[in-house]
Amino acid sequence: MVRDQLYPRNSPGLAERFARSADSVDGTCIRTQDVPAWLADRAAAHRFLVRRIPFAELDGWSFEPGSGNLRHASGRFFSVQGARASFDAPHREWQQPIIVQPEIGILGILAREFNGVLHFLMQAKAEPGNLRAFQLSPTVQATRSNYTRVHRGADVRYLDYFLQPTKGTVIADVLQSEHGTWFYRKSNRNMIIEVREDVPPHADYQWFTLGQIGALLCHDNMVNMDARSVLACAPIEHHEPGALWSDTDLLSWITEERSRREFRTERIPLAKVTNWERDDFSVHHRSNQHFRVVAVAVEAGNREVTRWTQPLLEPVQRGIVAFFLRWFNGVPHVLAHARAEAGLHHVVELGPTVQSAAPGDAREGTPTWPPFLMPTLMDLARPYYGTVHSEEGGRFLNAESRYLIVEAEEATAPANPPPGYRWVTPGQLRTLVRYGHYVNVQARSLLAVINASPALRPHPIFQPL
Amino acid sequence: MVRDQLYPRNSPGLAERFARSADSVDGTCIRTQDVPAWLADRAAAHRFLVRRIPFAELDGWSFEPGSGNLRHASGRFFSVQGARASFDAPHREWQQPIIVQPEIGILGILAREFNGVLHFLMQAKAEPGNLRAFQLSPTVQATRSNYTRVHRGADVRYLDYFLQPTKGTVIADVLQSEHGTWFYRKSNRNMIIEVREDVPPHADYQWFTLGQIGALLCHDNMVNMDARSVLACAPIEHHEPGALWSDTDLLSWITEERSRREFRTERIPLAKVTNWERDDFSVHHRSNQHFRVVAVAVEAGNREVTRWTQPLLEPVQRGIVAFFLRWFNGVPHVLAHARAEAGLHHVVELGPTVQSAAPGDAREGTPTWPPFLMPTLMDLARPYYGTVHSEEGGRFLNAESRYLIVEAEEATAPANPPPGYRWVTPGQLRTLVRYGHYVNVQARSLLAVINASPALRPHPIFQPL
Repeated sequence: MVRDQLYPRNSPGLAERFARSADSVDGTCIRTQDVPAWLADRAAAHRFLVRRIPFAELDGWSFEPGSGNLRHASGRFFSVQGARASFDAPHREWQQPIIVQPEIGILGILAREFNGVLHFLMQAKAEPGNLRAFQLSPTVQATRSNYTRVHRGADVRYLDYFLQPTKGTVIADVLQSEHGTWFYRKSNRNMIIEVREDVPPHADYQWFTLGQIGALLCHDNMVNMDARSVLACAPIEHHEPGALWSDTDLLSWITEERSRREFRTERIPLAKVTNWERDDFSVHHRSNQHFRVVAVAVEAGNREVTRWTQPLLEPVQRGIVAFFLRWFNGVPHVLAHARAEAGLHHVVELGPTVQSAAPGDAREGTPTWPPFLMPTLMDLARPYYGTVHSEEGGRFLNAESRYLIVEAEEATAPANPPPGYRWVTPGQLRTLVRYGHYVNVQARSLLAVINASPALRPHPIFQPL
Repeated sequence: MVRDQLYPRNSPGLAERFARSADSVDGTCIRTQDVPAWLADRAAAHRFLVRRIPFAELDGWSFEPGSGNLRHASGRFFSVQGARASFDAPHREWQQPIIVQPEIGILGILAREFNGVLHFLMQAKAEPGNLRAFQLSPTVQATRSNYTRVHRGADVRYLDYFLQPTKGTVIADVLQSEHGTWFYRKSNRNMIIEVREDVPPHADYQWFTLGQIGALLCHDNMVNMDARSVLACAPIEHHEPGALWSDTDLLSWITEERSRREFRTERIPLAKVTNWERDDFSVHHRSNQHFRVVAVAVEAGNREVTRWTQPLLEPVQRGIVAFFLRWFNGVPHVLAHARAEAGLHHVVELGPTVQSAAPGDAREGTPTWPPFLMPTLMDLARPYYGTVHSEEGGRFLNAESRYLIVEAEEATAPANPPPGYRWVTPGQLRTLVRYGHYVNVQARSLLAVINASPALRPHPIFQPL
């Protein structure tokens, strides 16, 4: 459209509206305490059965002769291939299976004001890989195959608001990485769109304030990974009078971490991946470490199609994802790790202080727990925040991680950490998230918790005069 | 280092210091009018001879048996391979040779105040591909091979300031793309480092204000591509009271352009690239369009090594790179094109309004001149800015483009342009440049011109009260 006036480059008032929503611990539409019952009700209303099957029972999926890559006959959805990754210094090289899905999916949340407070439309949605199948999900969670109708299922509800964002106002819209240790260069489009008009209701959807979602983020396996990723992109803005490092220094450090080593990832045939073996039910590492590639059959009543089979990637143990938190001059900082992952577009993104190990990590099979933080392991008994969350249940089976925010002190988490780690403020993470591919999906989950948590704002004595 | 206080997230006063430097049309160290003579003097002082050779005379370089890829025996530097690229809608697929150089080089400029005005240390440096060999270059221009000593030449002067940026203050440090139609996912590290102490002088280096560089950018082939790319990253900040689109809308549009099509680029053996042929002297397209891969021998006296041979990519004709410029309510806007290029990390970056065609462009062999702008072709006779610049002379032979900024009007360049084009302010481009991989190298060249040009600031009636 032609504009006859200029707009401010940054929407005034939006940050305050998000803050108000975060302060609203109950909403207009459903009471927070009723949410577990509502999810149970939706689960009861829908058929959703998942069972493991041997690869031979996969329908449309097969191991390609020669390469051994696991792919769908249509050439769409995703495939499981091999990757060979290497660093130059210190030299490290490894091979692993990896999910290849070059298409960009949409993760979108609709926002709308009720009684002057922003609410977000969340879906009670089941995913085959999640132990607790029905969780709070974004309004829309659609692969490109979904919405270009490759599997000819039912239409994706509310998708038009995101395909034609002119029906509303864009609040956030950015490409973000997914798990860099399990996906090869996967991006999803994370969107928040505000509408001012009524949205047709549906029994599987409810409107929540950010404060409500913050409270629900304290329940195990209740807010799914895609929802957490989108909420990390919310334009929250708590005034920060300063930070241990300027934004320029922070960006320079990330650039240095991305540049200082040569890191290469090449796709190779799955059949050629060394130390990984295939039997009737799984592709697995000889040591049984890391993860397995397995197959499931799903019967569902509220999905685009009601019956399907698919591969899933199943980690062998529960993960751990933790941010260490300290207050410097009243401003909260978390300890970020510039973490290299084989599948990331730019190799390095900011991850949490602690994240479960992946193939290729220096000490395989254990979390990449920085040695200097070992003494604080004991603190996990009394974390500032600690909840179990599921990873993406559409690709990962029983993939749960314990998400923690742990308050730390100089003795155990020094202001001057070793190379590869740096204290950053939530505001700095939010600025980076706005431009995409800077903050990994695990760190974004914890940022979503911080975004919905009034307690992590800077101390009021540092509010602007 | 441990910090005992917090720092402001964004350095106060830096924008003003850059503005003062841009206003300084002459400097403390060398008069602007003396620069052509100084460059001629450096050229006279150094031996620099380039001659075409047949591939058979390349030393250490050869076409790999089987793949036909052109590579160095050490496995380092770069290689020329093939690429197969495709869009899904509208469907388009093509193949081409492409330069593969996965390492990240450093393009760095030292800054220092003289008499209270920021100056920038520029090198008179020759590149084998440039018709005018000696041009103003960044202080340091080093591939990883250079500084990890693969070709065992002389040390790269001033490199330590960039490898250990703690010797100075980081002003800019960001990874940026190179030519996406000629390079496969090439990034360079663009840095500006300010020092407060004396820097050892050298006859090939001089300090310039930003205003001086702005004046020199009006001379053909005087400021090289790497210098232009780094200067585009300068933290200039002219207050902009608004823009035709908010930053959120702009980011959303870029995300949409990156998401709406499926775009794949795969590397293939050079020998398999259809429609491209090899003879003793070149790899070229059967139609003789686009570019050729050729070989040269170089003898130089001030380079890291004094004699070498290498392949270069030679475009068949001079390029054209143009931004259309309009003022909306006193604020300058340029018309950006969300341009897909086979070699870019995220496929789409913001390019200039007009850019020479590449393999795969809809109308091969002609500039991608948007049809709706055709009438303004006549305006090129009287552009706001028009200068011929060289592309990267270390990889490209005789690659020159005419860089233009053309003032346009509603009749020829409407406020509401067709899909794929959008009016953006220089400030919006600068914000995007800070995070990397958003603005392509051609558009960055023109942004460097704008950064050094006081005339493109918003009209004073829109300055802050």
